[in-house]
Amino acid sequence: VAADKNIEEGLAFVPKFGPDGLITAIAQDDVTAQVLMVAYMNDEALKLTLTTGNAVYFSRSRKKLWRKGEESGHVQKVKEVLVDCDQDCLILKVTVDQGQCHVGYQSCFYRKVTSGTTDKLTLVAEKVYDPAEAYRKK
Amino acid sequence: VAADKNIEEGLAFVPKFGPDGLITAIAQDDVTAQVLMVAYMNDEALKLTLTTGNAVYFSRSRKKLWRKGEESGHVQKVKEVLVDCDQDCLILKVTVDQGQCHVGYQSCFYRKVTSGTTDKLTLVAEKVYDPAEAYRKK
Repeated sequence: VAADKNIEEGLAFVPKFGPDGLITAIAQDDVTAQVLMVAYMNDEALKLTLTTGNAVYFSRSRKKLWRKGEESGHVQKVKEVLVDCDQDCLILKVTVDQGQCHVGYQSCFYRKVTSGTTDKLTLVAEKVYDPAEAYRKK
Repeated sequence: VAADKNIEEGLAFVPKFGPDGLITAIAQDDVTAQVLMVAYMNDEALKLTLTTGNAVYFSRSRKKLWRKGEESGHVQKVKEVLVDCDQDCLILKVTVDQGQCHVGYQSCFYRKVTSGTTDKLTLVAEKVYDPAEAYRKK
């Protein structure tokens, strides 16, 4: 339909937030292309991200704005925001320091499903910092 | 809490589907690291993906299994499935042919928010095929 075609082919940014008011945002390292994490934004978080240049998400568990790095110090500088065809998902190309995941890894995706299984995981990364130590400092 | 720690640090794959029974899945090119698309899987789609080695999603609009490539021919061969810390998001590392997005681009993320604006988009890619032509052939 015409409306869909505008969304897909047009150059107006009309992000489609879900029924919960949120849009999915993927943070991808602008240098290495590694996917670091997936989080969510409400309209305010998205506006703040675009206007300040630092990634701001909406925490679904804490139900409030989450200025990435406010506790951990691991700020994400946003170089580019990409949007997909139906405008319901974003990619933030970010530059970051070491240790983006609160568990201690650079990326939240530090495990893969073990080949030939449907229920086992294999580690594919090593921790780059000790979160207990890092959060104690604050 | 202990349960969270098992999910984050454990090696059991216990994917957390949302209230709608779906989990977010990012398809990332295994060779170029480009993010191609974001889609959703129910338990059956995930099991089929892991056991067949071809990406199978659940189409939210059509409300049924979507064997990627069944109409377009653009199958995704799955090399690896990564899961994030809280196990509510997956990355499929895939090998693909040209033209993964139905609009005609290689990736669904063919536009970026124009620098200095919050409502305009700039194209960042060129079409790699003509979808009208491709779907007419079927």
